Amino acid sequence: MVSKIDLRKRVRIADAQYGEVVLAGFVQDVRVLKNVVFMILRDVSGITQIVFKKGSVPDDVFEEVCSIPRESIVAVRGIMIESSIAKLGREVIPIEFEVLSEASQPLPIEFLNPSVETGLSRRLDYRFIDLRNPRVLAIFKIQSAITGLLHEFFRSRGFIEVHTPKIVAEATESGASVFPVDYFGRKVFLAQSPQFYKQMLMASGFEKVYEIGPVFRAEPHHTPRHLCEYTSIDFEVSYIESYHDVMDIVEDMVVYIVNRIGDICSREFEILNVKPPRMDKGLPRITVREAYRLVESRGYKPTYMEDLDTRGERVFSKAVEEEYGYKAAFLIEFPWRSGSRPFYVMRKLDEPDWAYSFDLIWDGLEIT
Amino acid sequence: MVSKIDLRKRVRIADAQYGEVVLAGFVQDVRVLKNVVFMILRDVSGITQIVFKKGSVPDDVFEEVCSIPRESIVAVRGIMIESSIAKLGREVIPIEFEVLSEASQPLPIEFLNPSVETGLSRRLDYRFIDLRNPRVLAIFKIQSAITGLLHEFFRSRGFIEVHTPKIVAEATESGASVFPVDYFGRKVFLAQSPQFYKQMLMASGFEKVYEIGPVFRAEPHHTPRHLCEYTSIDFEVSYIESYHDVMDIVEDMVVYIVNRIGDICSREFEILNVKPPRMDKGLPRITVREAYRLVESRGYKPTYMEDLDTRGERVFSKAVEEEYGYKAAFLIEFPWRSGSRPFYVMRKLDEPDWAYSFDLIWDGLEIT
Repeated sequence: MVSKIDLRKRVRIADAQYGEVVLAGFVQDVRVLKNVVFMILRDVSGITQIVFKKGSVPDDVFEEVCSIPRESIVAVRGIMIESSIAKLGREVIPIEFEVLSEASQPLPIEFLNPSVETGLSRRLDYRFIDLRNPRVLAIFKIQSAITGLLHEFFRSRGFIEVHTPKIVAEATESGASVFPVDYFGRKVFLAQSPQFYKQMLMASGFEKVYEIGPVFRAEPHHTPRHLCEYTSIDFEVSYIESYHDVMDIVEDMVVYIVNRIGDICSREFEILNVKPPRMDKGLPRITVREAYRLVESRGYKPTYMEDLDTRGERVFSKAVEEEYGYKAAFLIEFPWRSGSRPFYVMRKLDEPDWAYSFDLIWDGLEIT
Repeated sequence: MVSKIDLRKRVRIADAQYGEVVLAGFVQDVRVLKNVVFMILRDVSGITQIVFKKGSVPDDVFEEVCSIPRESIVAVRGIMIESSIAKLGREVIPIEFEVLSEASQPLPIEFLNPSVETGLSRRLDYRFIDLRNPRVLAIFKIQSAITGLLHEFFRSRGFIEVHTPKIVAEATESGASVFPVDYFGRKVFLAQSPQFYKQMLMASGFEKVYEIGPVFRAEPHHTPRHLCEYTSIDFEVSYIESYHDVMDIVEDMVVYIVNRIGDICSREFEILNVKPPRMDKGLPRITVREAYRLVESRGYKPTYMEDLDTRGERVFSKAVEEEYGYKAAFLIEFPWRSGSRPFYVMRKLDEPDWAYSFDLIWDGLEIT
């Protein structure tokens, strides 16, 4: 349980200053020359190089690092110095070295060698190693940063964060797509959304609530647009004039996140080789009827009085970009007929075949 | 859908400045005198008084407010002025008044009259009204503030926020207390904790993760200490020397929340008539063996090699306060025998009948 090197002194590589440091992480790579071993150490924050010189470190340590399996977990106490040769501009001269956990060989999946591609199924079998891939880690860091921005956004606007029950007695969205739960012999369900609770909280005078939590949809589809369990961002507000006030908040929220995430996660976007997104306010709000016209004028025939399908949404986004100069737009006033929308959706007062619903479509994908 | 008074101009009562304001909320009380009606308006932030003077407001409005049912939802545009007579130091002179939703009479439960006590079962039947009780709302506001502090605490320390799956294939804590879910004909379970996922994320090099989310325990007990579904605060860290490093974080976290919540929610503690708590660092860490001695010396006979029961924990807390001057303490080194603790608990290296487990007991209640 107690290691030789005091791990309580450990700092993350990105936070390490010049001078004595304790680092710990994965052995990403080892390059063995005659009298020197270059080890690349990786932790959650980045990588650095450790230089083991024969004669400067005990012989048994030199032997050990020569043959240490990649992805072993090690700790090192040493001196961080500037280096004009090292690619990263600095390196660590070890004083003490310790293997905390030796990796078995060979690695079941290669995640750092770009010339070795691993199939998704095998990656999922070894998910705990796949998650060591800095590209995969970057996705989780961006997700965490996004939820951080969401907490900031809602809290700075006076929203109360709530955690509503996930075991419920009735379906909220559609009766067909619920997961039954055996609750001490009684059949209950997993919540498809916090819909009822957040509406009840409005009747209770909470005025503004938000929740970030799991929702469950028993939709047996294998598409990138369906998940049986996902983390939902949901909010509800009282004292609005119309659903445009809700869209205002959605727009503020999305623009807030999109325009900040690139700065907060600049390193992650670099790792993913993705240009951070930007979004301007004033997103167009386009009725489904107008969307039919837009996609039809571009050669795609929509089914009238139905929602746009996947391809229709892509054509719609392209049309919006060409005609409005926006990559994102609200699609509003959806066709209404009995059963076509969740029952809590409000029909248009003057045109009851249409509903006060909206989706935010960004680059061909429904994001809210 | 569109109200006369523009609700987009509405501010919360606590945020209202002197001058013209738009307010909206519940009619908490109406006092009708001959030529004047005093209405107490309540929103999520507090209460204020609206003064309707006969002759100054249209007659039909004066009639309306004379008979408006309590808990109706109304909007008012008016002038907020200082008042030396009003108990709250200020009041609103109405220009425009609108009933957004009239309450039915009588109210099914009375939540503001301290002389009328409503049974818990009836309160739960009318939970949406019960939640209007500022005392109940205060609890949710404090909860939300606590999760806000938790996000701050973990994020400022470099933790990654994760949302792990709640539908799982195996039990994590104890096989007996899981809820079965019908997953497209396959029997799966609701997660009892994020235990496996957070440990896997350590193997994956995430180093520090936290999650605030629902967990599910199928424990058919009716006690204030058991809930079948609750919001769990969970974290995991890598590169520790011992479980004392974990307790250090737990202590920092609890002390951080406890000592800040009173300032953030001063109004809520006032409403609840509760003195905000305080907690000093340096909580004692007391082995279960020592706890046996402590409670026994106070006349309570513990069952050796078993955890303290509810009464035992209370006696323990009293003893700790007397002997150490702390209201809270870690209970450490729990008795271990096969099946007595979750399988992932580590046994003491030198004394395998005891485990590296800990609970934080505060004032007789296990809080972590």
